[in-house]
Amino acid sequence: MTGKGLFISFEGGEGSGKTTQVNKLAQLLADRNIKVITTREPGGTPEAEKIRDWLVQREGGNWTPMAECLLLYAARSMHVEHVIKPALAKGKVVISDRFSDSTLAYQGYGRGIDPAVIKDLDKLVLGGFKPDLTFIFDLPPTDGLKRSGRRLAAEQLHIKQTEDRFENLDLSFHENLRRGFLEIAKSDPARCTVIDALQNPETITSQIEKIINSRL
Amino acid sequence: MTGKGLFISFEGGEGSGKTTQVNKLAQLLADRNIKVITTREPGGTPEAEKIRDWLVQREGGNWTPMAECLLLYAARSMHVEHVIKPALAKGKVVISDRFSDSTLAYQGYGRGIDPAVIKDLDKLVLGGFKPDLTFIFDLPPTDGLKRSGRRLAAEQLHIKQTEDRFENLDLSFHENLRRGFLEIAKSDPARCTVIDALQNPETITSQIEKIINSRL
Repeated sequence: MTGKGLFISFEGGEGSGKTTQVNKLAQLLADRNIKVITTREPGGTPEAEKIRDWLVQREGGNWTPMAECLLLYAARSMHVEHVIKPALAKGKVVISDRFSDSTLAYQGYGRGIDPAVIKDLDKLVLGGFKPDLTFIFDLPPTDGLKRSGRRLAAEQLHIKQTEDRFENLDLSFHENLRRGFLEIAKSDPARCTVIDALQNPETITSQIEKIINSRL
Repeated sequence: MTGKGLFISFEGGEGSGKTTQVNKLAQLLADRNIKVITTREPGGTPEAEKIRDWLVQREGGNWTPMAECLLLYAARSMHVEHVIKPALAKGKVVISDRFSDSTLAYQGYGRGIDPAVIKDLDKLVLGGFKPDLTFIFDLPPTDGLKRSGRRLAAEQLHIKQTEDRFENLDLSFHENLRRGFLEIAKSDPARCTVIDALQNPETITSQIEKIINSRL
């Protein structure tokens, strides 16, 4: 920790248990009197939450993958400027449930936009800003889909009307997503740690705590 | 006209009379049995019109210039893929009231984003797609503001609550905007024609008709 705060993102597919671990880590740091905020993407500011409503709840129409990507970066740029950077400037730890890697994995590897285009967009909008540490929760898509309460019958996976649009895609999508996250981890090992999400939650918390301790 | 339609954009500040001329040109082409559609930005698809509501009517919160830019390109990518390109593929003439040049002028020259960043974003999202012909309506900002029904008293120009956010900015903004549009015209003279918007409407219609005739 450089005295300028620490920015940590949690990434992974649905049902990987990352949100539980975001909250556990926040509690653990707060118990040590470390100033910490938790936030999420898409979202984190009133404007960005509107984009979340559009994309996650399907309230906003049928956007193309490229338009989706641009909306996510509009939300992200607000989140970074209005929430994340100000908190880091005050020396806080910021824990975000998803960040840029999700766009690269979902809209790139998952929905077919050239990952190089998303990386260029990221540079244009964020100018190289990224988390100090990223935990990538990895598990086989079949397990993730079971955990997130979805059955695997193909007809169910293709149902159009569900609460969460991002869960409402077929198994091959989730396999591409997993591959995307693993490639991201491989490309930036100093920042990213892959977490085996099939381990029990206590083991995962200990693993994360150990890595955080080495940085605080 | 190449047999693949013709894409024409009308650009300029508020109160320049461009919307009137869009409609006159559309009528003139329709009278000659040329298939023509008129559209506008931000907007042109149900999704893109939602972004218009956010940005033009201030319903969507207080976006940064960069976020605004990304929202405008999200709208534009939908507009191009779902409306403009399909119409051009059917050989139609598409007339759009504003297109990419407006983002470069308003968010770039007007609101301070580096124009090079917007040009890079344009290439990433649209891959070089642009109008075949662009008419840039030029007039001194004082005239434009008068025509669009606004008084010039500085206190009025700074009032925050108005119907149209993009008109609700000060005179120096409008001067930068004008400079931006003129620089765009200068940088791409084969595509852009500057129209002196202080001329009478009939003169302007004739001028536009003459240029269109050379392309049909």
